[in-house]
Amino acid sequence: MKTTMRRLMHQSKHTETTVTLHGWVRNNRAQKAFGFIDLNDGTHFNTVQVVYEERLENFKQLQKIRVGSALEVTGQLVLTPGAKQPFEIKAEAISMIGDSPEDYPIQPKRHTREFLRQHAHLRPRTNLFAAVFRVRSILHHAIHEFFKQEHFMHVASPILTASDAEGAGELFHVTTLPLDNPPRLKDGNVDYSQDFFGAKTHLTVSGQLQAEIFAQAFRQVYTFGPTFRAENSNTTTHASEFWMLEPEVAFADLNDMITLSEKMVKYLIQTVLDEAPEEMAFFDQFVESGLKTKLQKVLDSDFKVLTHQEAVALLKSAEVSFEHAPGDNKDLATEHEKYLVKTVGGPVYIINWPKEIKAFYMRVNDDQKTVAAMDLLVPGAGELIGGSQREERYDVLVERMHAMNIEPEELAWYLDLRKYGSTPHAGYGLGFDRMLMYVTGIENIRDTLPFPRTPKNCKF
Amino acid sequence: MKTTMRRLMHQSKHTETTVTLHGWVRNNRAQKAFGFIDLNDGTHFNTVQVVYEERLENFKQLQKIRVGSALEVTGQLVLTPGAKQPFEIKAEAISMIGDSPEDYPIQPKRHTREFLRQHAHLRPRTNLFAAVFRVRSILHHAIHEFFKQEHFMHVASPILTASDAEGAGELFHVTTLPLDNPPRLKDGNVDYSQDFFGAKTHLTVSGQLQAEIFAQAFRQVYTFGPTFRAENSNTTTHASEFWMLEPEVAFADLNDMITLSEKMVKYLIQTVLDEAPEEMAFFDQFVESGLKTKLQKVLDSDFKVLTHQEAVALLKSAEVSFEHAPGDNKDLATEHEKYLVKTVGGPVYIINWPKEIKAFYMRVNDDQKTVAAMDLLVPGAGELIGGSQREERYDVLVERMHAMNIEPEELAWYLDLRKYGSTPHAGYGLGFDRMLMYVTGIENIRDTLPFPRTPKNCKF
Repeated sequence: MKTTMRRLMHQSKHTETTVTLHGWVRNNRAQKAFGFIDLNDGTHFNTVQVVYEERLENFKQLQKIRVGSALEVTGQLVLTPGAKQPFEIKAEAISMIGDSPEDYPIQPKRHTREFLRQHAHLRPRTNLFAAVFRVRSILHHAIHEFFKQEHFMHVASPILTASDAEGAGELFHVTTLPLDNPPRLKDGNVDYSQDFFGAKTHLTVSGQLQAEIFAQAFRQVYTFGPTFRAENSNTTTHASEFWMLEPEVAFADLNDMITLSEKMVKYLIQTVLDEAPEEMAFFDQFVESGLKTKLQKVLDSDFKVLTHQEAVALLKSAEVSFEHAPGDNKDLATEHEKYLVKTVGGPVYIINWPKEIKAFYMRVNDDQKTVAAMDLLVPGAGELIGGSQREERYDVLVERMHAMNIEPEELAWYLDLRKYGSTPHAGYGLGFDRMLMYVTGIENIRDTLPFPRTPKNCKF
Repeated sequence: MKTTMRRLMHQSKHTETTVTLHGWVRNNRAQKAFGFIDLNDGTHFNTVQVVYEERLENFKQLQKIRVGSALEVTGQLVLTPGAKQPFEIKAEAISMIGDSPEDYPIQPKRHTREFLRQHAHLRPRTNLFAAVFRVRSILHHAIHEFFKQEHFMHVASPILTASDAEGAGELFHVTTLPLDNPPRLKDGNVDYSQDFFGAKTHLTVSGQLQAEIFAQAFRQVYTFGPTFRAENSNTTTHASEFWMLEPEVAFADLNDMITLSEKMVKYLIQTVLDEAPEEMAFFDQFVESGLKTKLQKVLDSDFKVLTHQEAVALLKSAEVSFEHAPGDNKDLATEHEKYLVKTVGGPVYIINWPKEIKAFYMRVNDDQKTVAAMDLLVPGAGELIGGSQREERYDVLVERMHAMNIEPEELAWYLDLRKYGSTPHAGYGLGFDRMLMYVTGIENIRDTLPFPRTPKNCKF
């Protein structure tokens, strides 16, 4: 019977029977009269041990099988009570599907993460990256599943956009004009009317504004896809291409987003713990000691809420000397976030931020000084989610745009949403790759992205 | 009780009770002593009729409420047996959330599709586009659900790529260099080493090659996301940014892809019919007469398989004069596809295509003339899916690359997959937007994309 490791591992009862598996060799320990192959078929984190004996006619070739080779193995499934794995395969026939020469870079030894990044096309074949990318897939599914259960409609915000209005600054320019010699206007400037879209075009930095369009028609929607930042920063948490989840809800306020995002974070963590027990145990043992305890604590806690003002007061009264002085009109530094999470004893939303340091679309509170924004801080990661109630009042929004040097003309369609049947509405953004870092304990975003794009690096 | 139309419509039994709904006005027919508001809250295709009477204290204002306004309505749910809708709301209180001035572009009358495209930020508020985008969301979920059920792992292929090797030609260039005055090498050429990624970079045309990397580690994977084509063609089936689904399976051949894709197409159609009955009835009535019958026939049929040679023989023996003569080494024209689908009487896979007209990565058959490729033709749409078994033999692949002027050096990582544990593997691509066109009957891809990007058009 042709089968897979996933099917065998998920059988409630293992019966001794003849099975055929296809997979890749992780290790081959040849003895004189027998040998052991660790075979992984990609459908499960675990490998299966294949025992082969001298009686097999190609025994001599089998002894020489190298790591990385692809095999077809037929044999008897033999239960191994008390052993690490519940069963092994006693081979009756092993045939080579695809050889692997001696220079195969992924040998059964410890490779540095940097080495593996340079071999991003082979690193999914290691334990670490098999675990990372399987959990990534599970987390991805969990996001869609959560929002389906909550009756949100999915909408894909566009990647290409000509509205440069958000003022995010660090944009990738998209063009079909010849850089060598672009067409020019009489004044010497590049003539973008001759570009593919007839206008200067770039990659999206956020799908929020377009998601708002859909929220004003379907009430609750989410967009989840790649976004781009041409930021020239080489940190462990920045990538040039990363995934963002952005739900947006009409007839909703900031409190609704606090409720929704707390429920979502817990759902995502629970799903990963439930659906990837082997992978999570691996991370807990080899990547971040105490990871599962950290996540369980999040599941068990009620997320707290502090206003920015309360948070700053807490920081000012702290018996700690911070490198950066906390201030009423200032952003929180990483050291502040850490202190707050520790003091509160768990995840905490910081709400009502000074309007000067937040985006133009956030709703101005009655105090005229703060906006209805929220950041969710979690132990061990700092900010995980940022969101806000959106300014639904036409005049206030125009005023804010002027104050922040954004041309209302450029976003006429966005203002239309406040002109025709405007509603209180709110949403938030979750950096998907950072969430994956949080649940796996992986410290570098380059190791959570299948093919990370960072300054000077766009390989594969 | 605050509720939504979705919840009310999905109740098995409607009990008379007081409810509060939030939504937007689709129509307001004011009479002398009472009036009717058609309210849509975005959670369901149907609107609900709200009846308001003179006794309400703001009756005079209610009579003037304009289309597009956002309201809060509290009232009694009254069953209306025999009527089109199972219930209506007898208003006890109606309050204005967001007004809509008289120039609101979406009036309760017939608008042209072209007009609505120009108001893409408001068109989701029409019946037609509410139906299109809800079905789009359902279809999107169904794809993820299908592959989850089939135990495929999701991997997001990157959008940004520096490998220009597929020879697809029509690429969008991504850069942070100043077009005005880019840095140049001594020979006058643009110095791309100073660009953000240190190399000439563009938007992906397909996620397949990277998906193959993951299939060689996880056995069965799929990528599903935006892809880009800078093709200057203004047809009803081409967009510059569109979504592609691309599954990829190791230890699999072309037959496995035929089995998988037939199962998938049927699953997607069945899901849409099950989960969007109101929307599908609407399309059947107003967009494509006979749509549901067409789809049901696909569900009921066994997809046939013809070799390209058999197909051409059929065409040559046809008592029809084609504009383009069919030929053994030629692609099929649209008129050929139509004839074949009609003659076969349903969906048909055309397999084993002449290698000259297919991509370098498709597996060469034993006849040395054809490749193990497939196109799925369906009634009423022509090609829906294209796929192939991939060339897993290192030497053959290199030879094919040379023959097609592709530099093997450029795709060294892709060749590595054939060097280390290569396996027979196969995959296919489904244009998601075309699939949506097929199940909704919408004739123009611009009307299936939330914000279509086409030559000279990148608004919103």
